[in-house]
Amino acid sequence: MLCQLSSFLAEMPRQFPKLNISEVDEQVRLLAEKVFAKVLREEDSKDALSLFTVPEDCPIGQKEAKERELQKELAEQQSVETAKRKKSFKMIRSQSLSLQIPSQEWKAPSANPVLSPATPVLPSTFLPVQVPYDVPEFQRVSISGDYCAGVTVDDYEQAAKSLVKALLIREKYSRLAYHRFPRTTSQYLCSMQDEKWKVEDEVYPDFHSPPEENEDPYNLDDAPDNLDYVIKIKGGIPFVYDNKEMMELNEPRSLPYPDLETYTLDLSHVLALIADGPTKTYCHRRLNFLESKFSLHEMLNEMSEFKELKSNPHRDFYNVRKVDTHIHAAACMNQKHLLRFIKHTYQTEPDRIVAEKKGKKMTLKQVFESLHMDPYDLTVDSLDVHAGRQTFHRFDKFNSKYNPVGASELRDLYLKTENYIGGEYFARMVKEVARELEESKYQYTEPRLSIYGRSPDEWLNLAKWFIKHKVYSPNMRWIIQVPRIYDIFRSKNILPSFGKMLENIFVPLFEATINPKDHKELHLFLKYVTGFDSVDDESKHSGHMFSDKSLNPDLWTSEKNPPYSYYLYYMYEEPSFFHHYPIVPLNADCGGVWFFFLQSPVLQYLYYLAQIPIAMSPLSNNSLFLEYSKNPLREFLHKGLHVSLSTDDPMQFHYTKEALMEEYAIAAQVWKLSTCDLCEIARNSVLQSGLSDKEKQKFLGVNYCKEGPEGNDIRKTNVAQIRMAFRYETLCNELSFLSDAMRTEEISTLSK
Amino acid sequence: MLCQLSSFLAEMPRQFPKLNISEVDEQVRLLAEKVFAKVLREEDSKDALSLFTVPEDCPIGQKEAKERELQKELAEQQSVETAKRKKSFKMIRSQSLSLQIPSQEWKAPSANPVLSPATPVLPSTFLPVQVPYDVPEFQRVSISGDYCAGVTVDDYEQAAKSLVKALLIREKYSRLAYHRFPRTTSQYLCSMQDEKWKVEDEVYPDFHSPPEENEDPYNLDDAPDNLDYVIKIKGGIPFVYDNKEMMELNEPRSLPYPDLETYTLDLSHVLALIADGPTKTYCHRRLNFLESKFSLHEMLNEMSEFKELKSNPHRDFYNVRKVDTHIHAAACMNQKHLLRFIKHTYQTEPDRIVAEKKGKKMTLKQVFESLHMDPYDLTVDSLDVHAGRQTFHRFDKFNSKYNPVGASELRDLYLKTENYIGGEYFARMVKEVARELEESKYQYTEPRLSIYGRSPDEWLNLAKWFIKHKVYSPNMRWIIQVPRIYDIFRSKNILPSFGKMLENIFVPLFEATINPKDHKELHLFLKYVTGFDSVDDESKHSGHMFSDKSLNPDLWTSEKNPPYSYYLYYMYEEPSFFHHYPIVPLNADCGGVWFFFLQSPVLQYLYYLAQIPIAMSPLSNNSLFLEYSKNPLREFLHKGLHVSLSTDDPMQFHYTKEALMEEYAIAAQVWKLSTCDLCEIARNSVLQSGLSDKEKQKFLGVNYCKEGPEGNDIRKTNVAQIRMAFRYETLCNELSFLSDAMRTEEISTLSK
Repeated sequence: MLCQLSSFLAEMPRQFPKLNISEVDEQVRLLAEKVFAKVLREEDSKDALSLFTVPEDCPIGQKEAKERELQKELAEQQSVETAKRKKSFKMIRSQSLSLQIPSQEWKAPSANPVLSPATPVLPSTFLPVQVPYDVPEFQRVSISGDYCAGVTVDDYEQAAKSLVKALLIREKYSRLAYHRFPRTTSQYLCSMQDEKWKVEDEVYPDFHSPPEENEDPYNLDDAPDNLDYVIKIKGGIPFVYDNKEMMELNEPRSLPYPDLETYTLDLSHVLALIADGPTKTYCHRRLNFLESKFSLHEMLNEMSEFKELKSNPHRDFYNVRKVDTHIHAAACMNQKHLLRFIKHTYQTEPDRIVAEKKGKKMTLKQVFESLHMDPYDLTVDSLDVHAGRQTFHRFDKFNSKYNPVGASELRDLYLKTENYIGGEYFARMVKEVARELEESKYQYTEPRLSIYGRSPDEWLNLAKWFIKHKVYSPNMRWIIQVPRIYDIFRSKNILPSFGKMLENIFVPLFEATINPKDHKELHLFLKYVTGFDSVDDESKHSGHMFSDKSLNPDLWTSEKNPPYSYYLYYMYEEPSFFHHYPIVPLNADCGGVWFFFLQSPVLQYLYYLAQIPIAMSPLSNNSLFLEYSKNPLREFLHKGLHVSLSTDDPMQFHYTKEALMEEYAIAAQVWKLSTCDLCEIARNSVLQSGLSDKEKQKFLGVNYCKEGPEGNDIRKTNVAQIRMAFRYETLCNELSFLSDAMRTEEISTLSK
Repeated sequence: MLCQLSSFLAEMPRQFPKLNISEVDEQVRLLAEKVFAKVLREEDSKDALSLFTVPEDCPIGQKEAKERELQKELAEQQSVETAKRKKSFKMIRSQSLSLQIPSQEWKAPSANPVLSPATPVLPSTFLPVQVPYDVPEFQRVSISGDYCAGVTVDDYEQAAKSLVKALLIREKYSRLAYHRFPRTTSQYLCSMQDEKWKVEDEVYPDFHSPPEENEDPYNLDDAPDNLDYVIKIKGGIPFVYDNKEMMELNEPRSLPYPDLETYTLDLSHVLALIADGPTKTYCHRRLNFLESKFSLHEMLNEMSEFKELKSNPHRDFYNVRKVDTHIHAAACMNQKHLLRFIKHTYQTEPDRIVAEKKGKKMTLKQVFESLHMDPYDLTVDSLDVHAGRQTFHRFDKFNSKYNPVGASELRDLYLKTENYIGGEYFARMVKEVARELEESKYQYTEPRLSIYGRSPDEWLNLAKWFIKHKVYSPNMRWIIQVPRIYDIFRSKNILPSFGKMLENIFVPLFEATINPKDHKELHLFLKYVTGFDSVDDESKHSGHMFSDKSLNPDLWTSEKNPPYSYYLYYMYEEPSFFHHYPIVPLNADCGGVWFFFLQSPVLQYLYYLAQIPIAMSPLSNNSLFLEYSKNPLREFLHKGLHVSLSTDDPMQFHYTKEALMEEYAIAAQVWKLSTCDLCEIARNSVLQSGLSDKEKQKFLGVNYCKEGPEGNDIRKTNVAQIRMAFRYETLCNELSFLSDAMRTEEISTLSK
């Protein structure tokens, strides 16, 4: 995390192109507002989906929709112009089919055709696929004979253009945040814009490598020199000055950040796209196709994939690396573990002073006495931290489950980093979890700790907790989550404005980055922090639509909570490292509101094309709002979305000591996933994680940055090369459809 | 196991009443044959169920059935006689409602009425329930106003009589086999026959207590004295003589066994019942009622039950005892465990001689070389012992999964008790599994070992293996399973007849029982053996219907396998300890053919009334023939059937180290089972198990033999007393319906 901050400040950063409001149709903005408002208002009811989804279960609606499509098609057939365009699309298609796979020296397909347009067009199924990589023979599924069945030429073009635009937006923000954007998609986007794709232009997250075995992970002395820049946050936007004089002159360094207007416009574009008819239909069809294509692939190649795995020496599902990409530190131990720990402390140190209440110091024994409890009698039932039927659709009840025995005193004592004993008990439990991971060797985890923004000391306290209790583990990286509870702090008068909250969260970060020697502890802790997220009870909504007309954070002093998009913008635009898509979180944990967003075929398809990581926790969902067997994980995996499995809260949702394995086991059992499926999910989880480049090379293979079979080392991942080839060629195929649609000039030439 | 054999031989046993063929209508026999043949022939197709089930998904069929019922009801209404009988049933019903719960001094309800028939009948819902036990207040569901809604008086009487008869059959065979038969049901049966129920008459399985901590579990010197009886098996029936002289005089001791005629008649009665219209309808209605009643109970009392558990000190789901009641020893370790063990042996003792092939001794290294394998490269994929999609509906493929890497050499070396190294590797792995159980403290298991009946030495070899490798564990008891593969042995000419197979299986057993001093090893081993079962690929069928006309075992010399019922009879009638219902196994593992049998409402209802243990392995089923979410476990549990959870084959079906916990966790997650549900299943598993009386008292409470809340110690089982009361009162209610129907004389008196 630190490295990226530094590179922002040290290098001359890429300028962020500013968009002007006039470029965008006001209509788009209005539509976007409507979409957003509708989700927020009606998310719980089925109605909320009507804007997003294509009616699956209403026969009349389906019939009507089909009728309309047919009419459009018939109308098109009568137009000579359209017929010509259709024909040329078909030609382009058959040609690009043999050229789908981009090579390192990627050029736009049209520039270097294998078949000149004059050559009689062979059905592509008969063309030998020219692949630049070694892969065992398998049966490929390809469709020939149409440019894109079931959509009119106009709709196809419109959908493709909108999707390409959305992808470009995603790419822009990924670059800014040093997020991985898939190379293949990037290559296609370049070629569509007639730009040359260069490997040097690629942006990667740059995570800190873990210390070597003989290095001290708590060494405070290697902090780099201070830069002595000066930082100031104004209206929620940080400004960095070379020194005090420059600040007084109001001459900040030029930093790339999306200005408010651009951000809201981009947001509007994506939101409007969700409800755009042709795009919706196109995406829906493509997703259905992806799902069926995978079924076919599975039917044809299941045994070949398994053969590959069987002959892959030494590596199996148990010893491929898996990362738990979404887990809350305060619930990372299971309920039995917490119970055992509580009993243990009571047995071994009952007379230790562990709390202070109204100025009176209390021993552990006294704490339990005040709660009228004997720890010997405590059980997981009385502890009551496990989610059950009572929590289904009840986020409010669920949140109270974090209090053992319903007592916030015990939560404070055992599950917090800041308390009378300096968070020692919590640290000890986290370390016990870490030891188990280290023993199991192949499992990693990215627990989440909270920064609230109540006070500027929070960061330092967290860093001190980390160092004092030696919480570092090679199998752990840390994510910081910011609960979106400004409204609570404001109503208790802890904060004067939203702007102050942003300051509390970000100023310490900037200072530690600019002057590491002055903030050695925080600088050290940040080495092991790999991401940021914001969290809330996702069933609550503010109802406010974020726009460039919204108040700036310093003026946001009401007790109302700002909307998610507002949080997102101000937490994103801090030149940082946020895992967020303009409107949907990068590491979407498929819960609450995002679950509904992902039911939109447009967003789902964009997630596919941009291979946006999705961390799913079906067991957590199962307890909260979605029955296990109805969870879309299997469907997403089949379609080729970039899914991983995570536990969310082992304390609440898991029974065995091996929570992540339990999560995998249940998914495997309920959905009959193959070993290859499981290993693909595990590989995804490593890619999505904040493990360093060095570790990823070790766990996935040295070429992991490449895509397709070339980027896969089966000896490390146990993912069949056939599967990799299938995924890669399928992605290329989808992108080539977009690419074909963009070649409009060519089309007009061809159709003459 | 031993104790029971001895008591048979030592005490003067109960005589087994013989039935005469003429007592039974030939029609019943024919119907039984038809039912049996139909199941065997068509089990796989949906059709097979038509005889058993009530049409659920065919609206026309349902409507027609309803119409018919209505016509019958209307016809009855016109009869004055029936109207009278109906009225008296209602009176008896309202009266017996207040008397449903039998007390220790149980008498027939009619003998001691609380309300005399003359008293105006109050709706029973307003009567305070008089319960002889303490139970927290809860909301009871009771139905008043009809004797038994939706069934005609005639049908009701006919169904009740048939069911009572079937229960008496079950009770008879349970007594013979020293099986537990539920006390409540027994009390009702007594009262129906105007007999006095006495606690002394109860029969219990008498399992050997485990040795004390300071005792040597392998002490061969405490074998009791020889009895010097003589044993001889003739025509598959064992005869025991006081001595050789008596044998020559052909004067055997009188032993209770069901003669062939009686057995086949009883079998026919139960089979015919399955297809009996009125009984089918009645059972179907009662089962539906049981399910709905539980839903209602759950809705009303879920929180009260949970409150009980929360205030239950020290005990929770993790530290209640659970027994894995169905698990194969040769697959009791998970795939990763087996893999690790193989690698470990190869690393530590490659040069040890472990096999002999065609007279040539082979080291471990040579074994692997001959298979062209390097154990370092081995993975769970190449090991290929895990069930997957390929095994679904494929028992044949599934069975070959027992061969690691497809090599029977490795199975012989690692998973057998008889091989060059005397089964040492297998013993070591089993002991590793045992150590883990002992550490986890609360989990017990009953692994199954095979006796094939190929040679009379098998028993001794097994006993020697057990003693030599010190396989005893306080957390394990052993079940012997006999694969039904006579046909294979016969075709290889290993056995001359089925009779010889029976001899090989049973003569050593009898001899060790009669003369323990001469068979010390086997006598010792049998102390830890608690049951018998027979197994086969249940998708195969012989097509032969067993009857008293079937050949006797000595004459069964064909290569055809005898039918299951034939196996069952001859293995059951050995005066023994078999866990079998005349036609359905007591510890029904819900797989294969039994799954189809349990879809018969009649059998299902009988299983309920007789509380016959059912060990279910949904994960195993999931891999073999039934999708997890469609597994009937939840439904069975709700209805009140006596279900437990078992793993079957952790090697094939489980991912984590804690296979039984994984099984419970998945069930809890997929079906949202409450803690009380889970603890009820765990309690069932202990009751079903072969743990000794002493252990059961410790794990379930000293009164575990009593039924209802009195028999439950919540501090040990963590099952809510409310749940126990609900189950108990519900069973009493069901039995009282049967009891009411039997009071026909009374009815005629009342209706005058």
